[in-house]
Amino acid sequence: MDDINIRYLAKELNLSISTVSKALKDSYEISIETKKRVVARAKELNYQPNPYASSLRRKKSNTVAVVVPEVADSFFSAALKGIEDIAQTKGYHVLIYLTYESYLQEKEILEKFQNGRVDGLLVSVSSETTNIEHIRALYNNIPIVFFDRAVEDMEAARVTTNDFESGFIATKHLIDCGCSNIVYLSISKHLAINNKRIAGFEKALSDNDMNFNDSNVINCSNDLTDNEKLISQLMKREDGPDAIIAGVEKLITPVYSVCNDLKINIPSQLKVVCFSNLSVAHILNPALTTVTQPAFEMGKIAAQLLFKKIEKKGSAIENESIVLPSALIIRESTNCGNSNKT
Amino acid sequence: MDDINIRYLAKELNLSISTVSKALKDSYEISIETKKRVVARAKELNYQPNPYASSLRRKKSNTVAVVVPEVADSFFSAALKGIEDIAQTKGYHVLIYLTYESYLQEKEILEKFQNGRVDGLLVSVSSETTNIEHIRALYNNIPIVFFDRAVEDMEAARVTTNDFESGFIATKHLIDCGCSNIVYLSISKHLAINNKRIAGFEKALSDNDMNFNDSNVINCSNDLTDNEKLISQLMKREDGPDAIIAGVEKLITPVYSVCNDLKINIPSQLKVVCFSNLSVAHILNPALTTVTQPAFEMGKIAAQLLFKKIEKKGSAIENESIVLPSALIIRESTNCGNSNKT
Repeated sequence: MDDINIRYLAKELNLSISTVSKALKDSYEISIETKKRVVARAKELNYQPNPYASSLRRKKSNTVAVVVPEVADSFFSAALKGIEDIAQTKGYHVLIYLTYESYLQEKEILEKFQNGRVDGLLVSVSSETTNIEHIRALYNNIPIVFFDRAVEDMEAARVTTNDFESGFIATKHLIDCGCSNIVYLSISKHLAINNKRIAGFEKALSDNDMNFNDSNVINCSNDLTDNEKLISQLMKREDGPDAIIAGVEKLITPVYSVCNDLKINIPSQLKVVCFSNLSVAHILNPALTTVTQPAFEMGKIAAQLLFKKIEKKGSAIENESIVLPSALIIRESTNCGNSNKT
Repeated sequence: MDDINIRYLAKELNLSISTVSKALKDSYEISIETKKRVVARAKELNYQPNPYASSLRRKKSNTVAVVVPEVADSFFSAALKGIEDIAQTKGYHVLIYLTYESYLQEKEILEKFQNGRVDGLLVSVSSETTNIEHIRALYNNIPIVFFDRAVEDMEAARVTTNDFESGFIATKHLIDCGCSNIVYLSISKHLAINNKRIAGFEKALSDNDMNFNDSNVINCSNDLTDNEKLISQLMKREDGPDAIIAGVEKLITPVYSVCNDLKINIPSQLKVVCFSNLSVAHILNPALTTVTQPAFEMGKIAAQLLFKKIEKKGSAIENESIVLPSALIIRESTNCGNSNKT
């Protein structure tokens, strides 16, 4: 009783479902007369071969969805490639949904998955997401794996990087270069990864007897012009920073642009580190020191975790939490004249 | 006769479809006894409320698909944002499918749309696509709009840029700077946009009494390492070029990297122009001269054309072909010491 569409048509025609199915597929096993009769009645009944019928029967869409904040960020585009690599070997298609950092958009997208449109879900939450009911609501229906931007207080598999350590190491590197007034540019107070990076930043400061207070963290937005204004104000301050850690890739353009405009030399007057997977980091002016995540690997591993869940659906699978290390890649933007390559 | 799933259930129960529908939605209009009976029989029959049933009934999924070669390219990520902007105002969701420049992947993806999974399709074809039967097969079922990478010999609406003129203007600029040995780096012999850009390149050369032959165009691949090798060989040749036009954004990293390695100064020894929407073009070392497409606008207009088609489905709509101009943005990488800003 799993496909009453075609069943109804078969009943109407007094034929077996298999015969109707074969007739609709123009099988050589079925006589031309029967085919004509089936097609005519299907037309009369406005029978639509449901593209999802077979998927629903198998409870499989052979599709996984990836929900990410954006793709104009080299981390996400590389992670998507990793996900696609695994999905292809499994014969699955990947649907990509972009939230553009909007909680409402994310909520709307996830609500569409309630009735089994996809077999599994890979999520990197938006920077606005604090309420996670829309994710919880899916948790018992669809296998979910978080990657990069995970929700802390929810039990689900996840692949992340060592954000605390990365924040710590980046800060330590700047301190070793002689920086004493380091500012962290953030884009969200809500994201766990961001807060961990800031915690690592704070720890490195306090380990080196340096103060940490609210003015050490500047909250930027998703708007380039607003960020340029904010960074310009920051750099014009008398107590302006001697180093910046940019928490996301998109902040590097306004930092460099403002320094160009204000004739602030990087690295002699300002040292800059950015969390980024930019493939052009080494050809920027100056070449940019980055904390680089293993984006492609993270995508691959997240997809592998997801397929493990999809394939073993029903049986309890441990919610693995895999943490991959990021790498500090030191380039000209933090050149401090010594050879300390932390 | 447009929803025989629930119709069958209603028939079985000897109830109206509307009653069954309301009962399943737990409506206050239906008695508890009836609800219980409906739910019990639905369970017995393994009746699955089909998430697509209502969509199919309305012949609407409220979803449009975008099929693009990749997102690790700032043109496509910006165009997607334009598409999303329009889709949101229309209350539609955008599904993104990536072909990774593979014809087979593109074909497989498009075959999934045969039965109405989406209401419309925005396509930028892969660099491998020569056979277009998979696109033609959809043409009568689903509104299709091409953007950027259109198929020439197919009647369908499209939004493109003035590729011939852009190729011409970029070349003319390099000739004005005194370049006499210009090489165009291509990634596909099949893409119409690429061939138009090369035709513009050729025209500018011949207008200036310069030869054009096969050695003026180098076919690169999608592999970074291969491209680096190819460009390195090119630059080591005795008759190596004094200018490069990179036909796609991803070629800029290997060009700059090879020049760094070989200590070739840009722009004094080699001038470089790239077709690119890179937001960091102005902070590269040196700042990169680009032919920049109105990516966001193109996405918006392509989506507007698509919704026009979706909303007027059935009535004949002219297949509009909209051509937007790209801009040559002159920066340090083609600095020729004169003020000729073409």
